[in-house]
Amino acid sequence: MNRPLHLDPDRFFPLDDRARGLARALFAEVEHLPIISPHGHTDPAWFATDAAFTDATSLLVQPDHYLLRMLYSQGVPLEALGITPSDGDPDPAAPREIWRLFAAHYRLFRGTPSRAWLDHTFVTIFDLKVRLEPETADHYFDAIGEALTRREFRPRALFERFGLEVLATTDGALDPLGSHRAIAASGWPGRVIPTFRPDDVTDPDREDFAINVERLGDIAGESTATWRGYLRALAARRATFRSLGATATDHGPPSARTADLGTTDAKALFDRVRSGAATAAETDLFRGQMLTEMARMSIDDGMVMQLHPGSWRNHNQTLFARFGRDKGADIPRTTTYVDALKPLLDALGNSSALRLILFTLDESAYARELAPLAGHYPALRLGPPWWFHDSVEGMMRYRRQTTETAGFYNTVGFNDDTRAFFSIPARHDLARRVDCAYLAELVTGGRLEVDEAGELAADLARGLAKEAYRL
Amino acid sequence: MNRPLHLDPDRFFPLDDRARGLARALFAEVEHLPIISPHGHTDPAWFATDAAFTDATSLLVQPDHYLLRMLYSQGVPLEALGITPSDGDPDPAAPREIWRLFAAHYRLFRGTPSRAWLDHTFVTIFDLKVRLEPETADHYFDAIGEALTRREFRPRALFERFGLEVLATTDGALDPLGSHRAIAASGWPGRVIPTFRPDDVTDPDREDFAINVERLGDIAGESTATWRGYLRALAARRATFRSLGATATDHGPPSARTADLGTTDAKALFDRVRSGAATAAETDLFRGQMLTEMARMSIDDGMVMQLHPGSWRNHNQTLFARFGRDKGADIPRTTTYVDALKPLLDALGNSSALRLILFTLDESAYARELAPLAGHYPALRLGPPWWFHDSVEGMMRYRRQTTETAGFYNTVGFNDDTRAFFSIPARHDLARRVDCAYLAELVTGGRLEVDEAGELAADLARGLAKEAYRL
Amino acid sequence: MNRPLHLDPDRFFPLDDRARGLARALFAEVEHLPIISPHGHTDPAWFATDAAFTDATSLLVQPDHYLLRMLYSQGVPLEALGITPSDGDPDPAAPREIWRLFAAHYRLFRGTPSRAWLDHTFVTIFDLKVRLEPETADHYFDAIGEALTRREFRPRALFERFGLEVLATTDGALDPLGSHRAIAASGWPGRVIPTFRPDDVTDPDREDFAINVERLGDIAGESTATWRGYLRALAARRATFRSLGATATDHGPPSARTADLGTTDAKALFDRVRSGAATAAETDLFRGQMLTEMARMSIDDGMVMQLHPGSWRNHNQTLFARFGRDKGADIPRTTTYVDALKPLLDALGNSSALRLILFTLDESAYARELAPLAGHYPALRLGPPWWFHDSVEGMMRYRRQTTETAGFYNTVGFNDDTRAFFSIPARHDLARRVDCAYLAELVTGGRLEVDEAGELAADLARGLAKEAYRL
Repeated sequence: MNRPLHLDPDRFFPLDDRARGLARALFAEVEHLPIISPHGHTDPAWFATDAAFTDATSLLVQPDHYLLRMLYSQGVPLEALGITPSDGDPDPAAPREIWRLFAAHYRLFRGTPSRAWLDHTFVTIFDLKVRLEPETADHYFDAIGEALTRREFRPRALFERFGLEVLATTDGALDPLGSHRAIAASGWPGRVIPTFRPDDVTDPDREDFAINVERLGDIAGESTATWRGYLRALAARRATFRSLGATATDHGPPSARTADLGTTDAKALFDRVRSGAATAAETDLFRGQMLTEMARMSIDDGMVMQLHPGSWRNHNQTLFARFGRDKGADIPRTTTYVDALKPLLDALGNSSALRLILFTLDESAYARELAPLAGHYPALRLGPPWWFHDSVEGMMRYRRQTTETAGFYNTVGFNDDTRAFFSIPARHDLARRVDCAYLAELVTGGRLEVDEAGELAADLARGLAKEAYRL
Repeated sequence: MNRPLHLDPDRFFPLDDRARGLARALFAEVEHLPIISPHGHTDPAWFATDAAFTDATSLLVQPDHYLLRMLYSQGVPLEALGITPSDGDPDPAAPREIWRLFAAHYRLFRGTPSRAWLDHTFVTIFDLKVRLEPETADHYFDAIGEALTRREFRPRALFERFGLEVLATTDGALDPLGSHRAIAASGWPGRVIPTFRPDDVTDPDREDFAINVERLGDIAGESTATWRGYLRALAARRATFRSLGATATDHGPPSARTADLGTTDAKALFDRVRSGAATAAETDLFRGQMLTEMARMSIDDGMVMQLHPGSWRNHNQTLFARFGRDKGADIPRTTTYVDALKPLLDALGNSSALRLILFTLDESAYARELAPLAGHYPALRLGPPWWFHDSVEGMMRYRRQTTETAGFYNTVGFNDDTRAFFSIPARHDLARRVDCAYLAELVTGGRLEVDEAGELAADLARGLAKEAYRL
Repeated sequence: MNRPLHLDPDRFFPLDDRARGLARALFAEVEHLPIISPHGHTDPAWFATDAAFTDATSLLVQPDHYLLRMLYSQGVPLEALGITPSDGDPDPAAPREIWRLFAAHYRLFRGTPSRAWLDHTFVTIFDLKVRLEPETADHYFDAIGEALTRREFRPRALFERFGLEVLATTDGALDPLGSHRAIAASGWPGRVIPTFRPDDVTDPDREDFAINVERLGDIAGESTATWRGYLRALAARRATFRSLGATATDHGPPSARTADLGTTDAKALFDRVRSGAATAAETDLFRGQMLTEMARMSIDDGMVMQLHPGSWRNHNQTLFARFGRDKGADIPRTTTYVDALKPLLDALGNSSALRLILFTLDESAYARELAPLAGHYPALRLGPPWWFHDSVEGMMRYRRQTTETAGFYNTVGFNDDTRAFFSIPARHDLARRVDCAYLAELVTGGRLEVDEAGELAADLARGLAKEAYRL
């Protein structure tokens, strides 16, 4: 049918004309501000090697768990998308066939942010003029494939074209950070920085925890057979990350539970978990203790701490066994903060030297717990809407449910939080538009002056992220 | 005062003119589509006997727990509404007196869906021209009473007038389905089908559980003294329902908790609950086990499974003791799914042959749990907003909180879920309008193309229900 | 910069022109209705002595925990705001310096209700014409200070200027009510009434519980060494409050948990808690038992009962230890009602003689629990959005999530719930505007007739509060 593809220039703005006009004006002032991406999952190797991406399928479909989950939910087997099961042969499906299958199911994404991000990518990066549907699948596949062969579609060129001022990756505690070193050594001026994510050495429920802790010692040149040595090794790794530009750490435990044991108890607990004999209650306590330890180190070394709790990773055990992590089977759970964070806050919550940014997948906590906490404790800030809530409605709910209690200045701007590099401009475009829409509604509703809205639009688009992440 | 009664032709549409015009255009295309009613509580005897209804009070007030609850909350005794207490004489209140009492309190329903449904019924079915208030109570009572004597107000005539393509009732596992058999035998072409609701034989907390299980065996010609016989008896009843047109089962446990025990444990548990010696934990476990058993049978026989958890039935024990069930005293509770459904999902969640439709009274689960689950597991779909949330605001919250993660195609269209037969057109009218309003907002906000909205409007009004319930 | 300060005459109204025009018309009819303030925390001594307030800082900043919390969250030490720590010297900071600090941080309140209330106060009470910012801080401080020296800014003059029909304070069970007696004796016609808040003699977790109970006996002339005497003493205090005009009681336990023990058990429990030997479970049970006892007394003496559960008081223990209560460190928690209230409701919920008004800080309970409960039990009503939710968005969420199930007539109008006397007109102005906005949206959306909206606007502004609190 070859129906035209276009991006509504007023997309995501309020419906009301007065508010819409104002949102448009506010957005015009921030649309082209540089992008701060303080939290995400892009691969630093892209920028180290600057190698070309190969095709639409491996670039846009296969690594995107938002797409995999939706297709799978409607009966598309992962094998048909070229995801190889551990018990199976590599799937022979050609990238072009997979892309056609994706195009045939593209209507599933109607009304979702994936659709908005992809269409933005298609129009603004690949200059596509018709909608993705079965009839245009080959045209898309060819056009994208052709574009990717060109120099200006290489990672570094796109980094600049996207207006990225800084891009943070997320890296395990044991990561040698070779790509980050290579980028630094290359002379390329793009600012790509690591983020310290130590879950693999702080979560005793990981299968490879004991090995990881041992490797941590080896890498850091400390004996991790003792609690003190383990802490020293972590501090050493943090210092290494910091030397490569990191300004933040990130933590993804199943809950926000924290603890603050005395040294004797902490030491004994460490011995238990290291021995592999710990109960479930003990491993949970250990994770909680490590959050407080990390917060202490944050005060020492100035790293901003991010907490992303509440996802039940790999909820679908059959799928996990066959295909591994990050296939769209992580499901949020009820998450509370007021009780869970108390030990950490009792110890460190009054310190402005600590900056702990809280995220949630449980929106019921926004107005009930998170805004009141962030609106009181100097150490706390609220991260932007996360994951499933990184969407037009999700962002509006976030602003409506947090601003009146926490204000704007206890929030930290936008995180794109993506491994989909090509979607970064789309995500920031969407976030900036929704924030301008919200501000325009406040002004039109007599709740904010227009000059304040202009100042806030710039803060939300760039200033707050820069300040909050100490960039 | 005899103030005019009218239905705003733009009711429930967005306020913004552009979006409103678009909603109007979308609705015009779906307004007259046939009605699929895949889940509800109408009485099949109405269609078997086609007897006339008698008066406004017994038709519209006394069976409607939405009305009873609100009147009772404001101090109207149920006796004054002609509801007979078990410890009392039948109330002498005449239907006309009760109707007057209802009219005197009609203002209580301002802003509620009951008001919208009733006004729609008054205008479109009874052609009433003035509002219901004390001064017009007798006029209403007389006009409705007169209409009900006419042929075109008999159940079958209305079934056709309402444009019902299919109407599912809800029937206990022990129900002989006599009315359904009579309808089938009558030659009347209306499609009225049963739904298998086995709670009375799967919930050991029912007072009559042991007797019910025994009767189940008698009806099915199996010995239910054994676990195997009990399962065979259930399968047999399902087959009977299916032979009379049923395509679905329905389950209303207090929570969504599921279990998947081995046969030995299941058998032992069955013996415990049948003996009446089971603890509360064991009866709860048994209900959970039976959900998984029912899901297995669904894969075998193709019946769609509906789960309506989380209502505390008969919360008001004094009222329950005096007046029995369904008097408006069922209250929702916190309900979680991610943990509760895991045993069933581990066993069967990856099967597209299972279709399990999830409902909730706890809206905090929409975005946090239900949309992520339905947006991943092939077996899961999301039922429409249920009960207290079957309303303009409730429907908008549902769409806003589920669409961005689960999309539209993991939802199943509308359920009227009513025992109030005369309200069925009103409820579908409201649901179609709200869906068109939501779609119009997406289009006006640059989030959907207008041709897609048209296709979706038809899917939400009819297509998805037909497909999801395998009708 | 001296930017002009103005209040948008259409503030808080819908953006859509049609709905906005209607909201404006509805508001014009209720804007100047007398103010009913049935629950709040103003100091009755103000009206007893009618002494002048002294300066902007001690009047508007230091007692306002909304302001303290936000400033503190952004790193402003409480000492710098003139709050004296228990371990420190009185802060030498002059009121003017503190006001300047406040002005320098005024932007933190953008988008919050504090900003809306303060700007309304500045414009309508102090006739200020420019915005508060660093450049205008001194002008503000001088202008407000000068105004406060004038007769018409004395408490009684303002009470009349504000159009207060009745103002309820909140008073501990041991309060001698001297100020209320003085007001009564003064001949001044303003109606300032006490509210009986017995938490200090019903919560065994208060440090001074045992002493308080003994003092209760002394004041009431009963021996509180026995359960019967304790109950008699409470009844006597209630009678005293009632004789001074009280029509309500108020209760602020950590949860909504209730209990209904037999006399023997209750007596034994009282002995345990009085002895100081009670476990945490026992003190919790005792609080629950006392709610039911208070409800029984409410039926006896006609006092309306208010329940404000779910705040974790003094969550920040360091801050509490240094600065004491009410410094902005109270944080809400998950709060449920359906299970918690059952014992009380089983005993008394069907009585229209009991009026129990429920509040919440956990909005997830609005649609799930509170509206269904209030829409059924004759004893229950829903209080207005509380504390963090006393805001434009908070009020809209409340109406949208409660009206469709509980209707308007199970709600009780507005509570300003403030210790900030000068903000009372601002708070009622905001509440009336938001209610008119909601009603206008219902009418414009075809969900309510315009004459009904007019009637409801007056009920929500004044009638429901008057009726619900038996004023």
